[in-house]
Amino acid sequence: MEHNLLRFSGVIEKIFPRRMSPAGVAHQDFLMRHRSKQTEAGAAREVQLVLKVHVAADTANSLMAFGLGDRVIAMGFLASASHRDPEQLVLHAQSLHRQD
Amino acid sequence: MEHNLLRFSGVIEKIFPRRMSPAGVAHQDFLMRHRSKQTEAGAAREVQLVLKVHVAADTANSLMAFGLGDRVIAMGFLASASHRDPEQLVLHAQSLHRQD
Repeated sequence: MEHNLLRFSGVIEKIFPRRMSPAGVAHQDFLMRHRSKQTEAGAAREVQLVLKVHVAADTANSLMAFGLGDRVIAMGFLASASHRDPEQLVLHAQSLHRQD
Repeated sequence: MEHNLLRFSGVIEKIFPRRMSPAGVAHQDFLMRHRSKQTEAGAAREVQLVLKVHVAADTANSLMAFGLGDRVIAMGFLASASHRDPEQLVLHAQSLHRQD
């Protein structure tokens, strides 16, 4: 079995327009800004990054409860943004929760 | 508390030279090719991507047990590759195990 599971929290920084697929499934992307302190080789280090998140169907509907500046936790799999841009990674979130 | 935890498996595709920091800590990067079937909005989809993985200290030492073509499971946090290239993400692995 292959493993590709990311649990990731941050602040919603940008929400792109919602799109409907020909089959009537909702799709939407948004940007999350993440800041955390991590430990590597016994040393603390600051991590800061912006990650594009893709949501579809029910998870896209759950995005409607959130807005810019909200803190959320997303969980899902990483994939390349596109064949043209395989290096840019996108988190395909399968769950989205408010972070208290 | 912030969340930034990725559990990721794949095949080792390239191993970069091992480096020692001025403080004598081992650092090394390698590339992992990942292939999996994921489900999104009820539809199956193939995911394929190559991810750069950074290991340090003990985890860098554990890399020495592996070679090109080996299947491994890495777990750690995502960070930007550098300030110059914030979009390229690197998995800073804190554990590395052979995948049977």
